[in-house]
Amino acid sequence: MISSTQNETTIRVRYADTDQMGVVYHSNFVVWFEVGRVELLRQFGFRYRDMEQHDNCHIPVVDLHVRYKLPAYYDDEVIVRTRLKDFRKSLLIFHYEVVRSEDGALLAEGETTHFIVDENFKRRTLPSKYVAAFTGSSAE
Amino acid sequence: MISSTQNETTIRVRYADTDQMGVVYHSNFVVWFEVGRVELLRQFGFRYRDMEQHDNCHIPVVDLHVRYKLPAYYDDEVIVRTRLKDFRKSLLIFHYEVVRSEDGALLAEGETTHFIVDENFKRRTLPSKYVAAFTGSSAE
Amino acid sequence: MISSTQNETTIRVRYADTDQMGVVYHSNFVVWFEVGRVELLRQFGFRYRDMEQHDNCHIPVVDLHVRYKLPAYYDDEVIVRTRLKDFRKSLLIFHYEVVRSEDGALLAEGETTHFIVDENFKRRTLPSKYVAAFTGSSAE
Amino acid sequence: MISSTQNETTIRVRYADTDQMGVVYHSNFVVWFEVGRVELLRQFGFRYRDMEQHDNCHIPVVDLHVRYKLPAYYDDEVIVRTRLKDFRKSLLIFHYEVVRSEDGALLAEGETTHFIVDENFKRRTLPSKYVAAFTGSSAE
Repeated sequence: MISSTQNETTIRVRYADTDQMGVVYHSNFVVWFEVGRVELLRQFGFRYRDMEQHDNCHIPVVDLHVRYKLPAYYDDEVIVRTRLKDFRKSLLIFHYEVVRSEDGALLAEGETTHFIVDENFKRRTLPSKYVAAFTGSSAE
Repeated sequence: MISSTQNETTIRVRYADTDQMGVVYHSNFVVWFEVGRVELLRQFGFRYRDMEQHDNCHIPVVDLHVRYKLPAYYDDEVIVRTRLKDFRKSLLIFHYEVVRSEDGALLAEGETTHFIVDENFKRRTLPSKYVAAFTGSSAE
Repeated sequence: MISSTQNETTIRVRYADTDQMGVVYHSNFVVWFEVGRVELLRQFGFRYRDMEQHDNCHIPVVDLHVRYKLPAYYDDEVIVRTRLKDFRKSLLIFHYEVVRSEDGALLAEGETTHFIVDENFKRRTLPSKYVAAFTGSSAE
Repeated sequence: MISSTQNETTIRVRYADTDQMGVVYHSNFVVWFEVGRVELLRQFGFRYRDMEQHDNCHIPVVDLHVRYKLPAYYDDEVIVRTRLKDFRKSLLIFHYEVVRSEDGALLAEGETTHFIVDENFKRRTLPSKYVAAFTGSSAE
């Protein structure tokens, strides 16, 4: 019972994101995934800053997979579409699609797997309020 | 018959690479893979700059997979160990390991798959000199 | 007669922007200046993408000055306030303030000076439509 | 009596550093300055990591000035030449030149001013061992 909540966040491609091939350098999509993930958490009612500071939950990435379909160009608006794909006691998997605003073309998709750890990188379980939200057992 | 040539390149972690968890932000490993890939090509006798400018071969990333094992810290020296894992007419797959210089601990490993394209992103085949080097049919 | 038009663009601090001191790494403000500059141009009615592609005007930075006042933190919303400070035939100077959305505190201010060049980095003058907008002789 | 010690560190331009104008994006020079600064400290016998962890000295940038002279290109080797320009009880000023290895052409020069603070960003004075090194009163 993973929540089907999906977040859509719009990002404008910066000149700094491009490379000399005239397209967005591939590692920048990974940063966009972070933006999508944080906004999805916000949509669930959580601020990742508080998750770290108040609940001592950090979610370092342990696995990253990106499939690049089409280039993104300078000044394009892209939409990062993020959802929770799976979670277990101390692990979260997010799924991402990056699409071009203008025509909805899929530019890239990917997944990140995260361990849930404390400030010393020790595995820990998710506090129950997150579990409730992520299983959709809380109202949205 | 893929060449077993392996490149080892040392990189010093920059302050700019770290994040507020006190470790290297995960997308920076992807940039380190680029460094390793380019140095492997140089070891094969090719300069990627020339590959683009003189041979009209560009190798955009179409698939990226990273498995993070241990954090990298500020001022650490890391070694990027890169080898060609596979190649076909218009596709290259590189494999990477990032290890900590001090003790050889594996920090991350990954793979990138690249299409070979011309300046208009049209698929093309590798010129024969690259094929010769990559199959190890040329002396090194 | 420089236009007094001022742009305000909101940026959310990303985890990728932070460093191990727990604040935004200083070079990221320079990228935020770029965002502000491009949005100011858009407010003037110009898209920098078109300025490059259609009008063959590129504006590389030749001088950069930043004064950092207070740290920016992860997940802060910051406002980049950008205005044109000066321009001459083939030179533009932009001024920036980065303030924290929450309380308006000034985090940094700076200036960038740009040459106007063609695609070969040769100095050129601004087309008259830009001059008209930048002097405020066009309606806004 | 500022030490005239100068550090020269070589950096290879990465594809990630370039932008769609085919040159290094300007904010990357600021990261190169960081590399130069840290290597100068190492040449003085200090590791900035230890300066933070053991001596509780952090040196956030409060002022940054860069003058860009010539573009840097992909795969260029550049040399960052760094020296201490001034220091006072709780302030350091570094000066940088970035030159192209191949022909020594000056690509950019700049300065950064740093406050010396503790982990809570409170001003503090430099421990005497640094003062000794920076004034050249210690042998090198």
